[in-house]
Amino acid sequence: MRATVLHSPGDIRLDTLDDAQLQDDTDAVVRVVASCVCGSDLWGYRGLNGEQTEPRQIGHEFIGVVEQVGSEVADIEVGDFVIAPFLYSDNTCAICLKGTQTSCVNGGGYAGCQCELVRVPWADGTLVKVPQPVDEALYPHLLSLSDVFPTGHHAAVSAGVGPGSTVVVVGDGAVGLSAVLAAKRLGAAEIIVMSRHEPRQALAREFGVDHVVETRGRKGAAEVKEILGGIGADAVLECVGTKESMKQAFSSVRPGGTVGYVGLPHGVELNVPVMFYTNSNLVGGVAPVRHYLEDLLPDVLSGTIQPGRVFDLTLPLDRVADAYRAMDERTAIKALLTI
Amino acid sequence: MRATVLHSPGDIRLDTLDDAQLQDDTDAVVRVVASCVCGSDLWGYRGLNGEQTEPRQIGHEFIGVVEQVGSEVADIEVGDFVIAPFLYSDNTCAICLKGTQTSCVNGGGYAGCQCELVRVPWADGTLVKVPQPVDEALYPHLLSLSDVFPTGHHAAVSAGVGPGSTVVVVGDGAVGLSAVLAAKRLGAAEIIVMSRHEPRQALAREFGVDHVVETRGRKGAAEVKEILGGIGADAVLECVGTKESMKQAFSSVRPGGTVGYVGLPHGVELNVPVMFYTNSNLVGGVAPVRHYLEDLLPDVLSGTIQPGRVFDLTLPLDRVADAYRAMDERTAIKALLTI
Repeated sequence: MRATVLHSPGDIRLDTLDDAQLQDDTDAVVRVVASCVCGSDLWGYRGLNGEQTEPRQIGHEFIGVVEQVGSEVADIEVGDFVIAPFLYSDNTCAICLKGTQTSCVNGGGYAGCQCELVRVPWADGTLVKVPQPVDEALYPHLLSLSDVFPTGHHAAVSAGVGPGSTVVVVGDGAVGLSAVLAAKRLGAAEIIVMSRHEPRQALAREFGVDHVVETRGRKGAAEVKEILGGIGADAVLECVGTKESMKQAFSSVRPGGTVGYVGLPHGVELNVPVMFYTNSNLVGGVAPVRHYLEDLLPDVLSGTIQPGRVFDLTLPLDRVADAYRAMDERTAIKALLTI
Repeated sequence: MRATVLHSPGDIRLDTLDDAQLQDDTDAVVRVVASCVCGSDLWGYRGLNGEQTEPRQIGHEFIGVVEQVGSEVADIEVGDFVIAPFLYSDNTCAICLKGTQTSCVNGGGYAGCQCELVRVPWADGTLVKVPQPVDEALYPHLLSLSDVFPTGHHAAVSAGVGPGSTVVVVGDGAVGLSAVLAAKRLGAAEIIVMSRHEPRQALAREFGVDHVVETRGRKGAAEVKEILGGIGADAVLECVGTKESMKQAFSSVRPGGTVGYVGLPHGVELNVPVMFYTNSNLVGGVAPVRHYLEDLLPDVLSGTIQPGRVFDLTLPLDRVADAYRAMDERTAIKALLTI
């Protein structure tokens, strides 16, 4: 099969590998119809994940059609159109039953999925079947459910966004924009996005943003507070993960408010005494996509939300290197790969 | 008036000071009937708050009878029996209206209250009137509502304790024991307290604890997990505030669970990447007592809960130095002062 392989930082190639195969009786093999590049894929691409000693497959977001199932797979059938959460999980262990499938005792990541075939362990627990014929126009939106949209949703849920909430979104990447859409869907009364990029601001507005703040640091926080009647936001959705973005988040949240964070933290430092005295909370982490899918899928199928609009570049798999380059250079918000 | 004054670390005296007086039209002056010593009072007593340059009044928890009110006080009247939250607040600012009265834009702390008379700013916003004649037997329970019980309650609420929750309480001081009672009241299914002190374990059991874990560190966390079916607790109530206790808390919480913290943090370090990957949340801070009082008071008045049982030493005000000594030496869980 054709598969995307990161040979070394910056060196993305489409190689020919052995076809993915069933290994365990609970596995499925899925033929990918669409995949995409995640901001977190860029860490390895940029050489920021430590030394890479050998080539490795890459990618963790995909939708596709089930091609084979193991003998113990009961709910998923050959021919099903499925969404794959970016981590697999048995969905039956004690932690999965609590809704944190990302910490499943039998869970883990795929070998890679920017390719033609993917082995999916615990197929019944992991895959979510789309219960109707799927028009190609829906692919971006369904694909967004494998990671980026539920991740933005997780930021909003973690921060307690509900009807009437005031919300600040830190980050205007695909996750930040997804967080805007998620907050709007959950009933936020007022949404501010911190963004300096005109095209992203435009999409943010279409997703429901009321105000754009371009300044950063103390000035940015002061601007947020001015918009929100003198106090910070009920909920800040931290969708970047740097030291600076986390600091921005805590300076923008009101006393008693919550920072919902989904940006993979790099070098983040927290001022715990200040958090304590202001009752500013930190809730979130790696999004348990599987937990949210049944809730989110109907709104995508009905067209109520169009989370796939974060894809502003679509390329065939053999141009995957261009997709990485566009993401790396920030000329694309998020690149979709057709297989 | 007679008033407790910390002259220097370890030197607690009952001095004679000028009577507390009205200063602003929104003030009240309250004649204290009972006060108590807080674990946080011991920081200054032990010389751990930095250099103390001059004698200062101390104490922040009290109940009493209103003696004078300013011309703009409308809801509180002379003769009212009142509970004073440990911080004053106007209860009308934007932050108070969100329920975080501890960050009131006009809020602050009393001059001290282990004394006969206290000036209470923003009397209408701060004081909660007890709406019935008060029997002396209720004093400890009503007094506990000024700080210690709502603080334990805040840990439980922050950690999301509700019907069916599994709970670990880190700390067996008065706050930890209050957190046990609060968790039980909120419907927790299973409560573990980490305690090595027999008398405290006994009260914890009466308050609703199902299991006592005496070991600490990894072994203690392993014991917690064994009791809770292999995963950690839904909610961990951190009622100490040290580096070690916070570490214990995070090692005892399940993936996707929450540490509700109310122990004033000293030297706490958080492992944010681990928190992120396990979706372990940190929620809490200094308890907004005023926010909780209307909810908690009826259960105290009806005798449904007896949070004042954390007081295991009662002394008259002129023995306040003995009260501090007993708290410092941990021979008392919490000392009540009758005025």
